[in-house]
Amino acid sequence: MEIPSVYLERAVGQFASLPGIGRKTAMRLVLHLLRRERTDIETFSAILHELAENVRYCVDCHNITDEERCGICANPSRDHTTICVVENVQDVMAIEATQQYRGIYHVLGGIISPMDGIGPQDLEIASLVQRARQPEVKEIILALSPTMEGDTTCFYIYRKLADTAVAVTTLARGVAQNDQLQYTDEITLGRSIIDRRPFKG
Amino acid sequence: MEIPSVYLERAVGQFASLPGIGRKTAMRLVLHLLRRERTDIETFSAILHELAENVRYCVDCHNITDEERCGICANPSRDHTTICVVENVQDVMAIEATQQYRGIYHVLGGIISPMDGIGPQDLEIASLVQRARQPEVKEIILALSPTMEGDTTCFYIYRKLADTAVAVTTLARGVAQNDQLQYTDEITLGRSIIDRRPFKG
Repeated sequence: MEIPSVYLERAVGQFASLPGIGRKTAMRLVLHLLRRERTDIETFSAILHELAENVRYCVDCHNITDEERCGICANPSRDHTTICVVENVQDVMAIEATQQYRGIYHVLGGIISPMDGIGPQDLEIASLVQRARQPEVKEIILALSPTMEGDTTCFYIYRKLADTAVAVTTLARGVAQNDQLQYTDEITLGRSIIDRRPFKG
Repeated sequence: MEIPSVYLERAVGQFASLPGIGRKTAMRLVLHLLRRERTDIETFSAILHELAENVRYCVDCHNITDEERCGICANPSRDHTTICVVENVQDVMAIEATQQYRGIYHVLGGIISPMDGIGPQDLEIASLVQRARQPEVKEIILALSPTMEGDTTCFYIYRKLADTAVAVTTLARGVAQNDQLQYTDEITLGRSIIDRRPFKG
């Protein structure tokens, strides 16, 4: 398909470089932008520029932030004795949305995945071990996805933390809220029986 | 979900304002951008800026172009006696991709749709009638989608062109390539029998 404008062509190329967006969708998005006021496109452009200029990663936990230290690490009312280890920034937001956690985080920036060429040295594991040696840290929660890669990463970190004094914990596994038991996979269901809890009526 | 950076928040807002992109997808796209080189985001920003600055619409046919007149209208080897009327820029690209048309175009910028508040005055119909009065123009092809809105728009334009000398034609309707006859809707199948053509063996 021949595109009648090099500027349109370039903008379509940028959108089509994003994951899950093909050239037809990219074309639809750019033509949608062109139907708006031109100042709206300028605003979009300026906001991307500011994003590139200003977004930083927290020096402690590597969460996204606008400051040297993120809002969670800088908050003295959070429990700095407990560090929750997550794969990425979205996971921090997901756990924050539960309102069940008052500790701080450590964002690995990925999980160990030999298939994708991601090894331990590509992740923020060395800095986690360093944080775990600080005397105020009592517990490290491994909150990684319950997949093969997540389990591998948990095990690797667990071994790295062996000579520290911290308690290492992981998320409870079991049946999910509103799951149908008959459709729950047998590993999950088996685990939920082994890890059964006293019923609180 | 609380977003830990105002710059991230703003960028997510921009992507989420595009059709078919929700906030979760927008977040995924922006975090993907942040994992690339910062200069890549600057490039994206600059390309959007250039898009807003430079994209224009052809003074004759209203197709997207970087010049005063689009490449098709400015091409003397195209047949300027035949004008193909289409809803939007994508339709021009779709017809060009067939390599079956050597005439020029007229982009309406939409179709008549009372449900969406789009009337004839919102479309490039007056300029089409003006072009149809030029002595070199012999034929106007109405190439609009075969929907109720498309048919309404065709009929409206047909009446507006009644006192000009041009021949008004429309796209052939019939069974599509590789269609299964038993699943073809009855209006299309009935039309394809009425409009049957001599078989060329």
